[in-house]
Formats: sequence, structure tokens, C-alpha cells
Amino acid sequence: VTDRMVRVGLLGCGVVGSSVLRLLEAHAEDLLRRAGSRFEVARVAVRDPQRPRDVPQPTRGFTGDPSVLVGDPEIDVVIETMGGIEPARSLLLDALGAGKPVVTANKELLASHGAELFRSAGEHGGSLHFEAAVGGGIPLIRPLTESLAAERVSRFLGIVNGTTNYVLTRMTEDGMSFGDALEDAQRLGYAERDPADDLEGYDAAAKCAILASLAFNTEVRASDVYREGIARVSPEDVAFADRLGYVVKLLAVAELEDGDIAARVHPAMISREHPLAAVRDSFNAVFVHGPSVGELMFYGRGAGGEPTAVAVLGDLVAASRSLDRATAFRSPWYADRRIRPMEAMEAQFYLLLDVVDRPGVLAKIAGAFGDNKVSIKSVWQEGTGEDALIVLITHRANEGALQQTVRDLRAFDVVLEVRSVMRVEDKG
Amino acid sequence: VTDRMVRVGLLGCGVVGSSVLRLLEAHAEDLLRRAGSRFEVARVAVRDPQRPRDVPQPTRGFTGDPSVLVGDPEIDVVIETMGGIEPARSLLLDALGAGKPVVTANKELLASHGAELFRSAGEHGGSLHFEAAVGGGIPLIRPLTESLAAERVSRFLGIVNGTTNYVLTRMTEDGMSFGDALEDAQRLGYAERDPADDLEGYDAAAKCAILASLAFNTEVRASDVYREGIARVSPEDVAFADRLGYVVKLLAVAELEDGDIAARVHPAMISREHPLAAVRDSFNAVFVHGPSVGELMFYGRGAGGEPTAVAVLGDLVAASRSLDRATAFRSPWYADRRIRPMEAMEAQFYLLLDVVDRPGVLAKIAGAFGDNKVSIKSVWQEGTGEDALIVLITHRANEGALQQTVRDLRAFDVVLEVRSVMRVEDKG
Repeated sequence: VTDRMVRVGLLGCGVVGSSVLRLLEAHAEDLLRRAGSRFEVARVAVRDPQRPRDVPQPTRGFTGDPSVLVGDPEIDVVIETMGGIEPARSLLLDALGAGKPVVTANKELLASHGAELFRSAGEHGGSLHFEAAVGGGIPLIRPLTESLAAERVSRFLGIVNGTTNYVLTRMTEDGMSFGDALEDAQRLGYAERDPADDLEGYDAAAKCAILASLAFNTEVRASDVYREGIARVSPEDVAFADRLGYVVKLLAVAELEDGDIAARVHPAMISREHPLAAVRDSFNAVFVHGPSVGELMFYGRGAGGEPTAVAVLGDLVAASRSLDRATAFRSPWYADRRIRPMEAMEAQFYLLLDVVDRPGVLAKIAGAFGDNKVSIKSVWQEGTGEDALIVLITHRANEGALQQTVRDLRAFDVVLEVRSVMRVEDKG
Repeated sequence: VTDRMVRVGLLGCGVVGSSVLRLLEAHAEDLLRRAGSRFEVARVAVRDPQRPRDVPQPTRGFTGDPSVLVGDPEIDVVIETMGGIEPARSLLLDALGAGKPVVTANKELLASHGAELFRSAGEHGGSLHFEAAVGGGIPLIRPLTESLAAERVSRFLGIVNGTTNYVLTRMTEDGMSFGDALEDAQRLGYAERDPADDLEGYDAAAKCAILASLAFNTEVRASDVYREGIARVSPEDVAFADRLGYVVKLLAVAELEDGDIAARVHPAMISREHPLAAVRDSFNAVFVHGPSVGELMFYGRGAGGEPTAVAVLGDLVAASRSLDRATAFRSPWYADRRIRPMEAMEAQFYLLLDVVDRPGVLAKIAGAFGDNKVSIKSVWQEGTGEDALIVLITHRANEGALQQTVRDLRAFDVVLEVRSVMRVEDKG
């Protein structure tokens, strides 16, 4: 297997674009092993090419003229992270017209001019990759289009906007008003100064349109999606929802009904037991129904420079495979790593001990932990007399040390039984 | 773009294999549009080729000799759904040795002989696809290997066995003992007559090994994974977990620690706020951590004939693409569908009305719903006098009818204000 060199042209160098440059450099070796390609960023088009930027430098420099980059025959793949309709649309049509694979993170463009871009990719033997346009680093587009090629999706429900989900989470969990929660979100950088695009559901509607168009294999534009924002959700609604067993979420819902598509974005109550109800703060998730697979959910960070850049680079690998059709299969196993024995691992532990109810017992038990350098986080006694139990949670401890502690405890006559030892996954 | 014919040989025709045959027939047109291929199942190898089977028939029939199928030069792709180590291993090595792409759902084989299979695929220009081996219909393998090509996964936590998750859910939610919950699972078909493979964590350890080997790009075998089952989890442990804010789950955990891999399967307490805590009944989910993407979760049905067959067919599409490298890009939009206007949609609704506290008010309000053919599911009054509120939840109703009801309510002098109208997503 010979390595290929893939030359990349990058349009835009904002939050996502600069993360793309950094990750490409940091993960060059991994990408070579995984994709069989070396990626060289040849040119980056930016508004002001003179401005100093703290990013890995493109081999042929920054340019203020994106059309030069798109037309350059030495550039194999074009990545677009500029956003907005124009000039992104014209530039990508030029790149696709030249048969180049294109990777884009541009939700707005796809939700309004997707058909035109798909047509051009098909006509000129190029390809169009847009995992990063919906759901940041959450793999959604590839699972929907490839993994579910043999499924007919009937319906999906998504939480696809992090700002509104953060605001609704604060209203639900802290009883905040909409205004206070929004201020909180702005303070933390989860909401823009002008948050209308998020709060009124425009962002979610564009994402809903893209997902619906893929799930149902037809063009759906952002303007086809019914839309209501969250500004009218009151603390009262949130409280009633709670009493009824629901949580209020801004949902993007699309379904096939008698062959028609219904697509909408609006606040809705959803059962507390539904997996989407557990999607808190600025996280996103999409819940997919199909007659064969049943229910699927994809969850993660729906925005941010690095998660989105990971999605862009996953697409770059796919685009590079489409360039060179003779790429051989690569084993995903190439690293040399040791498997750590269980005794060397660390965890938090819960223990349940059946003990004799007598003064000094707790001190003796605590001593066994201390002797083995296992630190206790909390401990208490349940019941009295013959029913006396001690419940313990440790801080993170070495597995071997904990096992030794358990052996020591078993040897104590005041410990009638070590009833349970269980790990506690507090790292999440 | 010309259509290709891809000839498939299928090894095994049990629950998954027969679902593969049915879905291939039912979705032939979709697959042609999505993959650019027609798939013909040429031969199916089964133990007893004479037995009548209620499945679409292979064009060249059933055979009792799987080696004939594997060696047949007219078969382009081999799908294996037999399970077990031998003869599956030898058959797949023969198919890979002949340069054929192979799709397998065989978790056990991959977790013990994966290295050998990968090596053979690489050496002979074939490819090996195994999305169905872990997590049934949940896309996991493709996201891990392709979407996250530019991420270094640091850790994952998974609920990868449906039987044990069902048992633990019953213990948690209904206070059942382990024995009673297991009987319940067996009655519902979620647990086998001999459930040791599930309960003792062998199934989860094999899946953990496959996922760890992909996340960390090195061979990890089932036998490398530390393993504890759930038989010793007591109702007491479950109750203490609840008091401490935790839920007990059988977790498959793998992480990189100083370059070493730590992989383990055991019962653990996990915070009630963690998304994995909401994975109930026989559902599966895998939670992935990476420095760039942050946290991702993939959720769905981890087993079953149809979900697993969807995963097999997604892999078949990928395998067919690797056959014919000149496959042109295909637009995912090909269907002609109408976008349904919001007024034609149906939903359940919550309404909050500020009303005059007077006899007959409720009857008048209920009448407005009845007149518009909107059926009320529940209604009650909150507060009295000037603070009187009426809270209503409807059954599923037409959107237009509901809007008309709201207009009618606004016209009543006993309704001071329609404070809130919100959809309730009870369909999930």
C-alpha cells in the first residue's frame, strides 16, 4: 500500500477552519495509518491574508482570493468553513464543476441550495460531504445515508440547537425564567449577543430540513419547515410539564405520513422516560425511528470548533477515498499497546458490610482502608444490632489495593459479611 | 450512471440471515437508488438445504456445502450470519483469500480471530465489514472508524448486552430480585434458557474487545477483558444506589491510560444524570469520550434479526462500493414527496387557560373542544377566584382544529387568557 498525498484548499479560517488546520497537523500520523493519505493544506482563503494567525501555515500560503484556490488544478479537495450563502455557493459550484470533492460545514447553504450542489456533484463526478453541517461532531449524516441504506426511516425527533436546550435546561432544573436563563447562557458563551437565529428556531429548522431531506431522500428546504421558537415558554409551563411527567424541549420533528413529509420545529413536552429528556445543557441528540431498526439515538456536542472540525476531517478522509479508487483495505489495527491487568486499574468503589454493632467498629474498618491507602469518600451505618450495615463509597483507588482491603475486612471478626463491592463510574 | 449487479453468497439462514433475505427483497428499489447496485442472492448455505423456508429464494438455490459458495467465482460478496468460530473462520479466510469482500455479524469470531481476518483482507485486496457484530442495528463501527478518523478516543462506556440491562432495569424500577427479573426476561424472550453467556458478561466482553480494538487501533481479544457478571447484584445494592443518586448497570468500559489499554465488564453504579442511566430495558448504548469531540453516545436496539440485518445491508452497500471503484457519486435526493402543511398535521396538545372561576365554565370550555372534534384526555382546575387556571391535555388532534379551538376559546368572556399552547410528543 503506497501513501497518497492529498492537497487541500480551505475556504475560511474562523473557529472551525483553524481547528481543522490544528487537528490535521496534530493527527497527521493517525490519519496516514487510518486513511492511507498524507494531507497537505496548500492554500487557505481568508478575508485578510496579512493578519497573523496562530495556526499551522498552509504550504502555499494564505490568499484573499478564494476563486484562485477553487480553480487551482493542484488542489484535490476543497473544504468550506466560511458559512453564509454567498460567496460560498458560487465557490462550491465552481469546485464541484471542476470535479473536485467538496467538504462543507455550511448548514445554511445546504438547507437552501442543496439540490443545486448535489446536482453539480453528480454531473461532474465529484462528491459532496457535509457531516459537519448538522450536529457538530455527532455522526449523523453518514449513519443516516450509509448505515441505514436498507432502512426506511419513518420519523425522527431531534434536539439540534444547543443554545435553546441550555436555556430550557436552566428553566427546568433551576426554575429560572426565560430571560434569566438566556442571560446565563450569554454569560457562558452558549448564546450569541443577538440570539434570534437560535431562539426563534431558524438554526434548528435548517438542520431539520437537511436531516429530513436525507431521511426521506427528497429536497426539503429550511423554509419548508414549520417553526416556533422558545421565547413564549413560561416557568409555569415547565412546572406543569414536570407535574405531568414531561420535560419541555425544542424539538425538530420530521415524519412520513402517507408519503408526505411533515417537518416542524417547536417547543414540546416529552416524557421524562424518553431518552431525549436526558439530553441536558447544550448537548444535542437525534432520535430516529424505523420499522426494522426500531429506535436509534445519536447524542453529543452539536457545535464548537473542535467537534465540528473532527466531522470535517472524517469527511475529508471519505473524500480522499473517492479520489483514488485503488485504495486498498487498511486494517484498523496498527498500534502496539499493552493491555493493563485489572489489578493496575483505578476506580471508585461502593461497599456494603454486615457488621457487629459495637463501639469502635467503624474505626477498625476505616483503619483497614487507610492501611491499604484507599481513601474513603463517605461512610454511614444503617440499622442497629443484628441488622447493622455499613455503607461506604471510596475515592478513586487502585483495584489491587481495594481487593486487599476486602481481604483484610473479611478477616475481622466484627465484619460478619462483605455483602457487596461495586465500582462507581463517577468520571462519566 | 449504470446499475451494477452484485451477486451475494449468504452463509447461514437463521434469524439474521432470513431477515437479510427479506429486507434485500423488500428494499431492492431503495438500495438501487441509494447504492447504485442491484443485489442478487445467488446461493445460501444452510445445514439442511431440503427444509422448506419462508424466505425469498436464492437464484441458484440453497446448498449444504458452504465451501462451494465461498469458492464460487460468480459470487462477488460473502455475508456470514452463521455465528461460532468454526467453520465460520475457515470459510471467511477462504473468501478473503479469494479477494472477496466479506460482511459478518460474528462477534465471537472477531473478538478471538480478528487479527487473522484483517490480515487476510489486507493481503488479498478484499475488505472486512462487521457493523452487525456489535450493537445490532446501532451504527457504531462506521462512526468509530470513519467519522472519528481524526479523533483519538480516550475512553468509552457501553451498555452492550440487552438481557442484563433488562434484568437490572426490572430490579431498579420494580424492586424485583435478580431471580424474578431473570424469569421475567426469559418469559419475554429477552433471555435464553441458558443465560450464562449474557449474565456472566461473556457476550459483553466480546463486544467490549471489538470496540476497544477499533477505538485504540490494536488487537484486543475477549480474553483480554476483565469480566464480572450481574448475578451477585442484590436488591439492596440497587436500593442504596438509588439513595446515592446512582443506577446499577452492567458496563463495558475501555480506556487508554498512559498508552495502555484497560478493558473491563462489570456491574457499576452510574450517576442518574448520566445519559447511560436513561438506557432502559433491553436497549444498548455506547458513550464515547474524545479530547476533540467531547462526549458522544450511540443508542438503540442492540440485537434482533431485523436491526442486525439493517447493519449487515449497510455493510453490503459499503462492500459493493469497494468492488466497483468507478461508482459515481449519487445524490441522496431522489424521491418525489410533498411537504405537508402544518394545519394538516396531528399532535397532542397541552393548554393553560386563565379563566373566571364560575360554575359551568369547564362545560363551556369542554364544549369548544367538542365542537372542533378535539378530544380531551385530561383536564383539571388549579387555584380559585382570580387565580383560577384550567390545565388541559388533548388526545391527538388535527393542528387546524386545535387552532380553531383556541380562537373559539379566546372569544369566550369566561376565558381571560390562553396562556400556553404546547405540543406533547407522546409517540416518542
